[in-house]
Amino acid sequence: MHYSVSLIGSGNVAWHLSQALEKAGHQVREIYSRTPGHAERVAEKLYDAQVVTSLDFSESESDVFLLCVSDDAIGRVADELILPDEDAVVCHTSGTQPLDLLAGREHAGVFYPLQTFTSNRRLDLTTVPFCIESTDQHTEQVLVGIAQSISRTVYLVDAQERKMLHVGAVFACNFTNHLLALSRHLLAQEGLEFGLLKPLVRETFEKALEAADPATVQTGPAVREDYQVIHAHLDYLQRTPHWQALYKSITDSIVLLSRRG
Amino acid sequence: MHYSVSLIGSGNVAWHLSQALEKAGHQVREIYSRTPGHAERVAEKLYDAQVVTSLDFSESESDVFLLCVSDDAIGRVADELILPDEDAVVCHTSGTQPLDLLAGREHAGVFYPLQTFTSNRRLDLTTVPFCIESTDQHTEQVLVGIAQSISRTVYLVDAQERKMLHVGAVFACNFTNHLLALSRHLLAQEGLEFGLLKPLVRETFEKALEAADPATVQTGPAVREDYQVIHAHLDYLQRTPHWQALYKSITDSIVLLSRRG
Repeated sequence: MHYSVSLIGSGNVAWHLSQALEKAGHQVREIYSRTPGHAERVAEKLYDAQVVTSLDFSESESDVFLLCVSDDAIGRVADELILPDEDAVVCHTSGTQPLDLLAGREHAGVFYPLQTFTSNRRLDLTTVPFCIESTDQHTEQVLVGIAQSISRTVYLVDAQERKMLHVGAVFACNFTNHLLALSRHLLAQEGLEFGLLKPLVRETFEKALEAADPATVQTGPAVREDYQVIHAHLDYLQRTPHWQALYKSITDSIVLLSRRG
Repeated sequence: MHYSVSLIGSGNVAWHLSQALEKAGHQVREIYSRTPGHAERVAEKLYDAQVVTSLDFSESESDVFLLCVSDDAIGRVADELILPDEDAVVCHTSGTQPLDLLAGREHAGVFYPLQTFTSNRRLDLTTVPFCIESTDQHTEQVLVGIAQSISRTVYLVDAQERKMLHVGAVFACNFTNHLLALSRHLLAQEGLEFGLLKPLVRETFEKALEAADPATVQTGPAVREDYQVIHAHLDYLQRTPHWQALYKSITDSIVLLSRRG
């Protein structure tokens, strides 16, 4: 089934989702932004979407209203949003925010694509897991239908599971990215290029993602409890006590997890 | 120029290097292991390598002796090793151990492939950086020659740089792998599959490796200093205080790095 959709917000999530929606046969009617230029950047990739700057959608013919705004704007935007009627489905796309930010709506949901979005970067949305939560069966049916038209991987998750997914994603993505950033800084201190480590990083990640459990392919001095190397590294990091402390925390955590098995 | 090479050790590094050496036209003459079965596993992939169980290589016709043994065995093996003559080049393949473990040899070096090796897993060694350190010009010439016949990326590094590369690799690879393992455990607590996060992990790493500096593509609550989300996550992790502490350490480190710019 095809739906008419309006997107509230004009960032990277709106940029990617709107194009995927059209490709799947849905009609994107409106793109809202407080800053019309931003909405135009999204709309220009679409067949016939209108740029709007008002949250009054009482005249809109859309069935579904997707809030693709930052977490802290969801509540405010939801409060100002005027829907055409009570049949309209409204959902936000956040991994962390509760469904009850949309309280008072007849048909509310969360439509959370578990991915990081960068504009102008090609992404295969068919492999992106969509996590759906909803107040009622009609909303669930609509959101699951849309998600399945875009992606092969659609999950119904409750609030608790969605929160855990987000915490897990922070560890697996935000934190790992930071460790790569730190590593680049460390190398730069010696005038070494980060590129030197890239083949090793690629192989590490491929192995970790192929393993049923990344713990089983853990290598390095910590899992071997090779304290000679660990102490040499800690000495080396004395110039940067903060990174030394971080090295110690993660090393302890590896030892703990590997002893637990 | 092609060399005759003997490998001391029969683990994953020996398994990969020996095949790459033959492919590049060098002759692998001997594979040493205390456990002949292990050496046979390596030798069976080779044209005509002999399995040996003695470190007396006085009759060997090899020019180069590559120690592919664990870090803590290098010193002992180097002490027992009898080379055919003083022209022979001997080197170890460790990222962390000092060159002077081979003290007393005329031509000694480090031949460090900056990669993680798993046996039976295909690896494109041409993209693996080889880091060379040596006591003298002859050794440097031999080791650089061999490295360049295997890989497109060969670096001369001093002891300090090699140590930093290893510390950087621990952050970028061992520690990131651990974070993936933790993330899997977190999801498992809610009965969620780690596979759900894999598309996000892949995209995160591709972005980080394409960026000149992974710090510039950092996302998540820490870099936004979104303490509402951070505190919700810390609350969530109360059941596992160790992971909560780790979450806090890495979050602090992200904030610090992003404020520094």
